[in-house]
Amino acid sequence: MFVKHGMNSQFALLGSAKHCMLASSAVLRRQQFLIRTLGGYSDQTHLKRMQQTKAMSGTALEADAENILRAITPNLDSSKHKGQAGKIAVIGGCREYTGAPYFAAISALKIGADLSHVFCTKDAASVIKSYSPELIVHPILEESYSVRDEDKPSISGKVLAEVDKWMERFDCLVVGPGLGRDPFLLDCVREILKHARQSNVPIVIDGDGLFLVTDSLGLVSGYPLAVLTPNINEYKRLVEKVLNCKVDDHDAHEQLLSLAKGIGSVTILRKGKSDLISDGETVKSVSIYGSPRRCGGQGDILSGSVAVFLSWARQHLSAAEGDLPISKINPTILGCIAGSALMRKAASLAFQNKKRSTLTSDIIECLGQSLEDICPAI
Amino acid sequence: MFVKHGMNSQFALLGSAKHCMLASSAVLRRQQFLIRTLGGYSDQTHLKRMQQTKAMSGTALEADAENILRAITPNLDSSKHKGQAGKIAVIGGCREYTGAPYFAAISALKIGADLSHVFCTKDAASVIKSYSPELIVHPILEESYSVRDEDKPSISGKVLAEVDKWMERFDCLVVGPGLGRDPFLLDCVREILKHARQSNVPIVIDGDGLFLVTDSLGLVSGYPLAVLTPNINEYKRLVEKVLNCKVDDHDAHEQLLSLAKGIGSVTILRKGKSDLISDGETVKSVSIYGSPRRCGGQGDILSGSVAVFLSWARQHLSAAEGDLPISKINPTILGCIAGSALMRKAASLAFQNKKRSTLTSDIIECLGQSLEDICPAI
Repeated sequence: MFVKHGMNSQFALLGSAKHCMLASSAVLRRQQFLIRTLGGYSDQTHLKRMQQTKAMSGTALEADAENILRAITPNLDSSKHKGQAGKIAVIGGCREYTGAPYFAAISALKIGADLSHVFCTKDAASVIKSYSPELIVHPILEESYSVRDEDKPSISGKVLAEVDKWMERFDCLVVGPGLGRDPFLLDCVREILKHARQSNVPIVIDGDGLFLVTDSLGLVSGYPLAVLTPNINEYKRLVEKVLNCKVDDHDAHEQLLSLAKGIGSVTILRKGKSDLISDGETVKSVSIYGSPRRCGGQGDILSGSVAVFLSWARQHLSAAEGDLPISKINPTILGCIAGSALMRKAASLAFQNKKRSTLTSDIIECLGQSLEDICPAI
Repeated sequence: MFVKHGMNSQFALLGSAKHCMLASSAVLRRQQFLIRTLGGYSDQTHLKRMQQTKAMSGTALEADAENILRAITPNLDSSKHKGQAGKIAVIGGCREYTGAPYFAAISALKIGADLSHVFCTKDAASVIKSYSPELIVHPILEESYSVRDEDKPSISGKVLAEVDKWMERFDCLVVGPGLGRDPFLLDCVREILKHARQSNVPIVIDGDGLFLVTDSLGLVSGYPLAVLTPNINEYKRLVEKVLNCKVDDHDAHEQLLSLAKGIGSVTILRKGKSDLISDGETVKSVSIYGSPRRCGGQGDILSGSVAVFLSWARQHLSAAEGDLPISKINPTILGCIAGSALMRKAASLAFQNKKRSTLTSDIIECLGQSLEDICPAI
């Protein structure tokens, strides 16, 4: 995407900005970001690192993640009001799982979203609420064990009506953390996904949300605001289902490109030693930072993180309406790059302190410092 | 209010106190506060700042917030007993919301109230209790889903009887944080408001309490101990309902004055970049400190904070009975100014440490230090 659309004219447009001292640091940051992203940089060290990464992972291009993160993170401004820095909702949390939706939702707040909701089952709600008073937790989902067959249509309708009351207020949904695989619950979530799509709300899909979507690709196919964040096993199932072959690590970026194209218009963030990101048009990788610790829950932080940055990227691009170079950049790709970079930085910081003992909560506690290190608030 | 009633005689009364070394520092603090507040100060720097603020915000006058806070905060004294520093009750907390009433109630304690109660639904109670053992949580409110129509009158009666048992012990109610909008629950709260008013208990109204009151202005109209604390959207609804026009930011203080006068005798704290406060007689602004972070929950801290300072202001004025200048000052205005200043200071302190990652709980943790910085305990 970055390298396809009218790059020469974009570069010409931006080239002169590079040596120009701008009054607004925000504008300067954005210009610098674009110059780098679109290929107009001459930083030799950076170039070398990019070439090395390219050699390591085929022709995938290491994203200039920190500059992208800086470019899309909104300036803080006392005249703004509650909600303007993002309203995120997590759909997940059932009798079995309560940690995952909490991790995703609290991560969104710690990165700087103003409001973070969780829609989960009644059993999960009181537990998730008790983890933190900062979250707004809606106990509205139902699992089969608590619903009679004849009541299913009416309960499904109620669940959907409850989510619909809020839908248009959300800047992004995260669907899947701690969702479980109860058939009735997944049927309800299937409808929620359809409504989110009708309302043009971006959706980050992880965990059991990917189980649902792999089974019903039509839910996301052709929806450019859908982001899938599979881990190694979830990616394997997607590849087998869509491309009808095995995962090929020697040609990882081409296969990812084909997968995203095969599903149709969605963006995929393939988690791994390097995170690989594609929307079917281009492939980017994020290899900076990271930690060797693989405790469960890190994927939930990532999904919340991508949701916030994707919202910010859309906000940023919409504010820059009419500015051609910016408006051509896919916000889902930007959100994935920034979300991945921040998560990897926080994981690395937590690991420095806690080593083998690092838990997901330790990483969440490092999100603020990591963001501040990359993109100081003031 | 400050500048209207017999100012010359007040000033004459207090003028000599300014250069006099008083044995009691509390008395000295109060005198200094009054001298400043009533216009009898000659501090040029202060005067300049006031003029600048006046120029920025029309004719609204920046309050001398820190001196007001110092003047009304009671001295700590080992001979006092539990309850004398304030007993606050929050009416709020339902199936959906538990964080908001917790934030309001715990903030009251952290500022220095002795006891903090929460009246909420059964669903909310166990969660709010789990946030903190410091709060007294009454699981007495009911939502429509758990009540049959034929039982509503008797249940409503029981709810009211439970609150009435406590009503006269409270120095201030906070009505609204996490109340939700269930019709039956709001009907009960409507009655609670009437009883509080009959008992002459001050009421701070925020969140969904404002939704209720905007719909039934008679609940607060003509009640001088009612304080409304609307955010941008809640203020918009009030202006449209009462003044039948749009919010006019160019003449913000005049419109606020008209709104408070239009509702009748209530005090309004309009939250924003600067907080604007009016009782229909005068307008004050609080612009000191503050933070650009707009995470949800800060309004709940403010409502708890105003409740405590309003109680203290009343206590202070009642102790000074017969002292004409003091008794002419509206305690609701004093409570709003001090509550706003402390909240803004705590938010600023939390932001210094946590930057974009600042959450409402972080701000609450800074209330104590902020109060100590402005008004040392000993």
